[in-house]
Amino acid sequence: MNNTVSKLLLGKKREPQALSAESFAPANIALCKYWGKRDSALNLPLTSSLSISLGEKGANTRISVLDSAESDVVILNQERLAEESSFVKKLSAYLDLFRDVSDRFFQVETTSNIPVAAGLASSACGFAALIKALDKLYAWELDQKALSILARLGSGSACRSLWNGFVEWDRGQCMDGLDSHGYPLEVQWPELRIGLLIFEPLPKKISSRMAMEHTVQTSPFYKIWPIVVEEDLLKLKRAIKAHDFETFGSVAEANALKMHALMMTAKTPIVYGSPKTLEAQHRIWDCRHQGLAVYFTQDAGPNLKLLFLAKDLDTVKQGFPELEVIAPFGESA
Amino acid sequence: MNNTVSKLLLGKKREPQALSAESFAPANIALCKYWGKRDSALNLPLTSSLSISLGEKGANTRISVLDSAESDVVILNQERLAEESSFVKKLSAYLDLFRDVSDRFFQVETTSNIPVAAGLASSACGFAALIKALDKLYAWELDQKALSILARLGSGSACRSLWNGFVEWDRGQCMDGLDSHGYPLEVQWPELRIGLLIFEPLPKKISSRMAMEHTVQTSPFYKIWPIVVEEDLLKLKRAIKAHDFETFGSVAEANALKMHALMMTAKTPIVYGSPKTLEAQHRIWDCRHQGLAVYFTQDAGPNLKLLFLAKDLDTVKQGFPELEVIAPFGESA
Repeated sequence: MNNTVSKLLLGKKREPQALSAESFAPANIALCKYWGKRDSALNLPLTSSLSISLGEKGANTRISVLDSAESDVVILNQERLAEESSFVKKLSAYLDLFRDVSDRFFQVETTSNIPVAAGLASSACGFAALIKALDKLYAWELDQKALSILARLGSGSACRSLWNGFVEWDRGQCMDGLDSHGYPLEVQWPELRIGLLIFEPLPKKISSRMAMEHTVQTSPFYKIWPIVVEEDLLKLKRAIKAHDFETFGSVAEANALKMHALMMTAKTPIVYGSPKTLEAQHRIWDCRHQGLAVYFTQDAGPNLKLLFLAKDLDTVKQGFPELEVIAPFGESA
Repeated sequence: MNNTVSKLLLGKKREPQALSAESFAPANIALCKYWGKRDSALNLPLTSSLSISLGEKGANTRISVLDSAESDVVILNQERLAEESSFVKKLSAYLDLFRDVSDRFFQVETTSNIPVAAGLASSACGFAALIKALDKLYAWELDQKALSILARLGSGSACRSLWNGFVEWDRGQCMDGLDSHGYPLEVQWPELRIGLLIFEPLPKKISSRMAMEHTVQTSPFYKIWPIVVEEDLLKLKRAIKAHDFETFGSVAEANALKMHALMMTAKTPIVYGSPKTLEAQHRIWDCRHQGLAVYFTQDAGPNLKLLFLAKDLDTVKQGFPELEVIAPFGESA
């Protein structure tokens, strides 16, 4: 059990209080990206970041106590993953942090309604759902902040998947990371829509963990990134508060482009965009040129997430009929 | 007549010594890019840059003295351009620098064997050919350095089109720009090949002049660019001297990507690449992954210029059958 975990679980129950428990966590999309770690083991970021959760899109995870097993069993979307797979190893290492006895093994069954590992933050909602399920299984009754910190240990951006709506991940200052977690922004924006433009649902070639590390180490422009993020975060939060959609969209889009520019300038370059990505980006810029307020963000994959307002839904859908539209604050608007 | 011109033409003939004169200048492709000016009127750059000339690909310009005309006549590839066109205005403003009397008008006839304004430095060879033709017409007998400075007044990168082979443009330090000109690198590399991969021969939407200014003013990463260029220039010159093709190719490619990353992070972003560009870039990276030493550079347009060695010509041609191959040091290798 590592330091963070032992501090947070101090005085908590150490044995499972049920045979299984289940929880859901939404996927989240960063509007101001998390790109670069100051501590790789604890997933402590070099900068703060800001995301929007995807409402009902996310991961549902059931964790069950296994009897007389010799290893964890991981089932992802009804398919059992091989023990040797890197994902299972990662998950088992994460579970190691919480086992009450070393031969306590679990079955982890996750159903995700978003494409896995296509830059849609599937590992974020996966680890958030898992820590929530673990909390139920052991009946720890941890608060959201503690769960956010623990989720972060699995995947950095998972710490933002503990809430709906806008979530800021404060980078924190402490070495132990106990001040590095998400917190929700108290702003609703029911008119906001997110459109998933999925070109390739296949897993990406280079993990974001690798890409991030490579960028920090080799892009000559990286030293400017923390300054960029600080500015973008401020502008984004102001725009969200004021419901100033054009500033919101343009700052989010520019932030994503800056992250991809960093990767493009890494040595060797990493380019997640495919020709389809670029074609769609040019189409989005053309739409904007014609007065339509539609913006995009892009993560460590070729897919795009469009940002627009409910009033423009029909027009956006005309340009992008394949769009899967999400109302992060519900369909009311 | 501006300051630079009057200094360089001091004691030179002021009247045309012939009815017409003709000259050729090669196009040049920057391997370490010129991106950003410290003086926009004199085309003085913020950084030095390095190019390779394209041998027989370039512009042939004939300048003729017109009798009793009221304006200049510009003919580009057998087509007369409209007086109001921005290119004719630019050319006339350039000719203003050299007219012996204010009602001396010229016919400028340029034939270019490269696509115009598709990021293939057509204005560079155009202005270089023009200043060489003017030098003949007036019988100034200026040296190459002086011609390079004067060509620069028309288009910055034109100052590199006065020579064949590798040319460095030293940014210089003086306010008047008299130390900002090209000079040839005394290195031959006969095995070097350049492949033009032309997707769109149409003129680009945003001129490089505009894009450059916009980038300098709005990209948060721009302040790192001069440091990047200094390093890349050193590495490139060392690689050229050593005929170290892999370093040469990878530094040139990375330099281009950094320039495009800067544009992508300008506010609003400028992306010259089309889906075809990106598709070809991914193909080039795949080729390299399979051990083929092929690299690219890209200027202010969607087209790519491939860099490879003569020994790999057939393999490269298999991957890119549409390639137009140039031997900048002749076909001997």
